[in-house]
Amino acid sequence: MEPSSGSRDAGPAVPPVAAVLPAGGSGERLGGATPKQFCAVQGRPLVSYTVRAMERIGWISDIIVVVSPENVETMKSIIEKYGHKRVTVVKGGITRHRSIFNGLKVFAENEFSDHLLQKPEVVIIHDAVRPFVEEDILSKVVMAAKEHGAAGAIRPLVSTVIASAADGCLDHSLERARYRASEMPQAFLFDIIYEAYQQCTDYDLDYGTECLHLALKYCKTNAKLIEGTADLWKVTYKRDLYAAESIIKDNLSQQVCVITDVKEVVAQVGSLLHESLQSQIKVEAMSASLSKNDSHLQNILSGHCYNFVCVNDKKCAIQETQQLVDVLEKSNIPLLYPVVLILVHLDVSENISFSIGMEELTRIKKFARELKKKNILVYGLLIQYK
Amino acid sequence: MEPSSGSRDAGPAVPPVAAVLPAGGSGERLGGATPKQFCAVQGRPLVSYTVRAMERIGWISDIIVVVSPENVETMKSIIEKYGHKRVTVVKGGITRHRSIFNGLKVFAENEFSDHLLQKPEVVIIHDAVRPFVEEDILSKVVMAAKEHGAAGAIRPLVSTVIASAADGCLDHSLERARYRASEMPQAFLFDIIYEAYQQCTDYDLDYGTECLHLALKYCKTNAKLIEGTADLWKVTYKRDLYAAESIIKDNLSQQVCVITDVKEVVAQVGSLLHESLQSQIKVEAMSASLSKNDSHLQNILSGHCYNFVCVNDKKCAIQETQQLVDVLEKSNIPLLYPVVLILVHLDVSENISFSIGMEELTRIKKFARELKKKNILVYGLLIQYK
Repeated sequence: MEPSSGSRDAGPAVPPVAAVLPAGGSGERLGGATPKQFCAVQGRPLVSYTVRAMERIGWISDIIVVVSPENVETMKSIIEKYGHKRVTVVKGGITRHRSIFNGLKVFAENEFSDHLLQKPEVVIIHDAVRPFVEEDILSKVVMAAKEHGAAGAIRPLVSTVIASAADGCLDHSLERARYRASEMPQAFLFDIIYEAYQQCTDYDLDYGTECLHLALKYCKTNAKLIEGTADLWKVTYKRDLYAAESIIKDNLSQQVCVITDVKEVVAQVGSLLHESLQSQIKVEAMSASLSKNDSHLQNILSGHCYNFVCVNDKKCAIQETQQLVDVLEKSNIPLLYPVVLILVHLDVSENISFSIGMEELTRIKKFARELKKKNILVYGLLIQYK
Repeated sequence: MEPSSGSRDAGPAVPPVAAVLPAGGSGERLGGATPKQFCAVQGRPLVSYTVRAMERIGWISDIIVVVSPENVETMKSIIEKYGHKRVTVVKGGITRHRSIFNGLKVFAENEFSDHLLQKPEVVIIHDAVRPFVEEDILSKVVMAAKEHGAAGAIRPLVSTVIASAADGCLDHSLERARYRASEMPQAFLFDIIYEAYQQCTDYDLDYGTECLHLALKYCKTNAKLIEGTADLWKVTYKRDLYAAESIIKDNLSQQVCVITDVKEVVAQVGSLLHESLQSQIKVEAMSASLSKNDSHLQNILSGHCYNFVCVNDKKCAIQETQQLVDVLEKSNIPLLYPVVLILVHLDVSENISFSIGMEELTRIKKFARELKKKNILVYGLLIQYK
């Protein structure tokens, strides 16, 4: 196969990496009508968390989500609602392998999508129902795939694996230490996995599940195995949805965004705050004045940061805060989860007495009372800073 | 081995079944300081739920909990606090197999406990960190063990299992459909598993984990494999504790206890209520007047039923309800979870007008207001019944 010359500029040094997320499962094991990838976790479909985990990584150029034909519109509306970028929705086949193959064809076969996407050097394959994937393991499997042609995350086995005889009795049990569970993400040189899929039989496509196995069988590529962390688990049963919800709630309460404007004294306090907070929680800092159209702020919101510290030295910051509130309301976030806004007012005047008058205080209190009804909790802090 | 003549009377027909729960794990995979079996889930240690799951089954005569020596006192205090019955705490060894062996010795070796327990025909082995085990699967593995000598629950594999080569690359992947995950509970004829443990090597005791494997290797017993349900999973990671908590909360809200006194008309309404409720939720019915020392009521409370419907035809039921409240308060349950009390007052008089006066209503309202502070929510219902 010749490398195709894609229509998008991928930058000079880094060859493009793409990701294919099979999301065509029917969720039988979950015991519900909704396939698990579309189940709401804290009001947001599970697949959206996984797409978000991919999209926040700058070096992934394209994200292909493969869904069953009846879910194409659902998936497109999820992408629009949560503002996902660089995502292409592709119709899946009737099995996992057929769906992944369809996802790969977008980079190689003209007729399969509106426009041919630039063929990546490496393609990541990752389940839509594994939302907690981190950049570290993605970068490890990509690097290993470049070197070995294929790579996949593995985990120790939780249970002993046994083989049963025809009579339903134990035949033998495997020595647990010698085996591993094959998890996701996996990564491949595009040419290798695409060739493997082109060569494989209908039996493989219909009954197989393991991409590493195809690369070995058809391209003689022994995948490099990378020990992954416990958060690579797959949402399979209802209990896993419960667990995902609790983990997402935990993460939400442990992230804060510090917003300051560009003025030196304000930025200085913001960065001091940043430093002392980050030993406790995950801090997303930004130094920009609030604006309804700030795309950086939009990104932070879609990254599920629901706590804000706004530092300012203005006499009255209600107007600015209102802008943040407008963005929050538009995002629908406070409907799902209480948002905490801490307004830090820096008093840099030489005056020893507090410079906020009763009238101003009453206005802030009223403002906070109104916002509380919208599930936005406002706290104020006055700091004298010299 | 000769069957020992135990000191307890096991009844004539049913040979005794005992359960050994290894609970000696250190919980490394959980990433916390507290071993997972002692982690609090809704304010109660996980192991207590598992013990409860065994103890509610009448045909299990003895429950042996094997803990590491430093946790013997902790375990004893859990048994006392939650009123567990038929439980013996045994000191474990340094590995899982050594702990289970210690648990079995209680039935066979005089020196190992204060008194020799009656040797069971069948022994169940079940992990302390699998709290959701149901009677159905326990009875299936016990019946299969009687027939085959050994039996164990299995589940489909969630991930493909692979073998790695010495260089950390994929050697081969197993065909997922041919293999199963070996789960718990397992059951054995006591003489078989005890003989297997007596014969097995130090290497087995130190590095093995699978009891079915020992029965096969040392007693040529091919265990019968029984497909289990998804709720047999093992609490292994922190996410599993989250899931356990959510499942327990779900179960709590889906159980109700109907309490009536013995009067015919009241009991009749109670059983009508019982019938119509049980298509929706799990109903524990009892027909007894409330009393502080009612052991049946105590059992229901320790079985985690937190919702009550009390049916009466008395002029004033506050005094009776107060008795239930006293039992609840003594049990500490309302501290952990809101208790719902629905007081149904049957009016069986011929009088058409409501027979509860304003004064009585005010008293009930005040009573309810006081109880709300204690996390007990009281609702009243007046039914005219002719």
